[in-house]
Amino acid sequence: MRVVAPNACDMSDPAAFPRLLEILRAPETPRVWSLLVTIFGDLAQEKDATLSGTALGRLTAPMGIKPEALRVALHRLRRDGWIESTKTGRTSHYSLTGAGRRESAEASPLIYGPEPRESEAALVIAEEDIGTADWVRVTPQVALAPGRVSVPGAFVTEITRDTSLPDWIRAKVCDEDLCAACSGLAARLGAFQVDMQTAVPLSPIERAILRVAIVHGWRRVILKAPLLPDHVFPEAWEGARCRERVAQCLASLPRPALAEIEST
Amino acid sequence: MRVVAPNACDMSDPAAFPRLLEILRAPETPRVWSLLVTIFGDLAQEKDATLSGTALGRLTAPMGIKPEALRVALHRLRRDGWIESTKTGRTSHYSLTGAGRRESAEASPLIYGPEPRESEAALVIAEEDIGTADWVRVTPQVALAPGRVSVPGAFVTEITRDTSLPDWIRAKVCDEDLCAACSGLAARLGAFQVDMQTAVPLSPIERAILRVAIVHGWRRVILKAPLLPDHVFPEAWEGARCRERVAQCLASLPRPALAEIEST
Repeated sequence: MRVVAPNACDMSDPAAFPRLLEILRAPETPRVWSLLVTIFGDLAQEKDATLSGTALGRLTAPMGIKPEALRVALHRLRRDGWIESTKTGRTSHYSLTGAGRRESAEASPLIYGPEPRESEAALVIAEEDIGTADWVRVTPQVALAPGRVSVPGAFVTEITRDTSLPDWIRAKVCDEDLCAACSGLAARLGAFQVDMQTAVPLSPIERAILRVAIVHGWRRVILKAPLLPDHVFPEAWEGARCRERVAQCLASLPRPALAEIEST
Repeated sequence: MRVVAPNACDMSDPAAFPRLLEILRAPETPRVWSLLVTIFGDLAQEKDATLSGTALGRLTAPMGIKPEALRVALHRLRRDGWIESTKTGRTSHYSLTGAGRRESAEASPLIYGPEPRESEAALVIAEEDIGTADWVRVTPQVALAPGRVSVPGAFVTEITRDTSLPDWIRAKVCDEDLCAACSGLAARLGAFQVDMQTAVPLSPIERAILRVAIVHGWRRVILKAPLLPDHVFPEAWEGARCRERVAQCLASLPRPALAEIEST
């Protein structure tokens, strides 16, 4: 199934792609519907972009996803209004719905962009208990909020890179598990970068699969983290390192055109 | 009992002193032992300074204190180790003990001095409940502290004159009753200053009594207030105005020598 086109240098190494994919493998098997969200978000977010069932099979099989599991996940995402499908002959073509595209677009700056909200954060002390979902609750009446907030009746003080924030407050921003997941990804990405330095040219579908594996790993970390600048996270948080490596890795794996993926 | 020495200007007005004392009268009758603490603190704080029972009677009678109440209060203060007494013939001479002098000296900067700790205050957010007596608790884990504090493990942010502090936090610094007591005193001191502009010269004992009335009124306000700069108090707090008027009034009533009080 794997095809490496011989190129000018002819340094073809059939083990390179499986090794690179193995390096990126997270400790937990990805949930298939979640992986599909990553695939559509990374490869087919544009309006009118579609992926055939065949292409989706080729993208997911190397990650150990069985065809039956793929079918179930596609059914679930269609039922949830995330994707829709059309049929041409015996082939199904899947694309994001308007809602799925909107949510993908909303997450994209976090996944592909620089540090959120730059260095801005605020500590808010309110008279009543703070229940805002987007904020990190520090005590019942104290929260960390992203950006420059103005809250009527609350005391607000800016938190900059130079603010000394005690560890117990940082620990509320991100628990040890998420810090560990982030460090694990940073390590895998670092190993991936080393291996990529000597890797042979990869096929479009291989590039697509590796991109998806990278984006999926990062999504699972960064979308669980609060929308706050890195400097309020615990010392152990390697979000900045991960973000940088994700950007470098994706730059080394140009996104293939959909036609390339379909025609592999 | 009242003696006004005729002076060069001879503008003697026998009603002036009772009127001035009446202006200063607080809504509540002072507790005698507390008034004695004021008297010793203002007139006889120096080491070896004594006041005779006779002089104490002359200082307190115009405020409506009966001899019997004076005797009871003197007994209580002696029992509590605040004052001690020696006898010369039939006359008792009272003076502060070492402890009484130390506590008086400790309160003096607050009573006679400028705004405490200048403009410095800090907001402290601690991991555990804050139980420090000197601080103002804002929420169980948030407190206002005077000066520049450094608390291991706590988040500390400086509160300056320019910090926007919401009303509900200011309200924790000082309740409405104390704000009202402060405003009442500010008003009495203002009226006193107006009346003093046309007042005749006062005798040493009259100056002493008026000083005691002023200092006692101010003590009852400022020693109940937390040790924090005025700018974190509620809008209604007239502490700065009171402090200024107290200083002006006391400057217009030079402290008599003990010998002048005793010989009146």
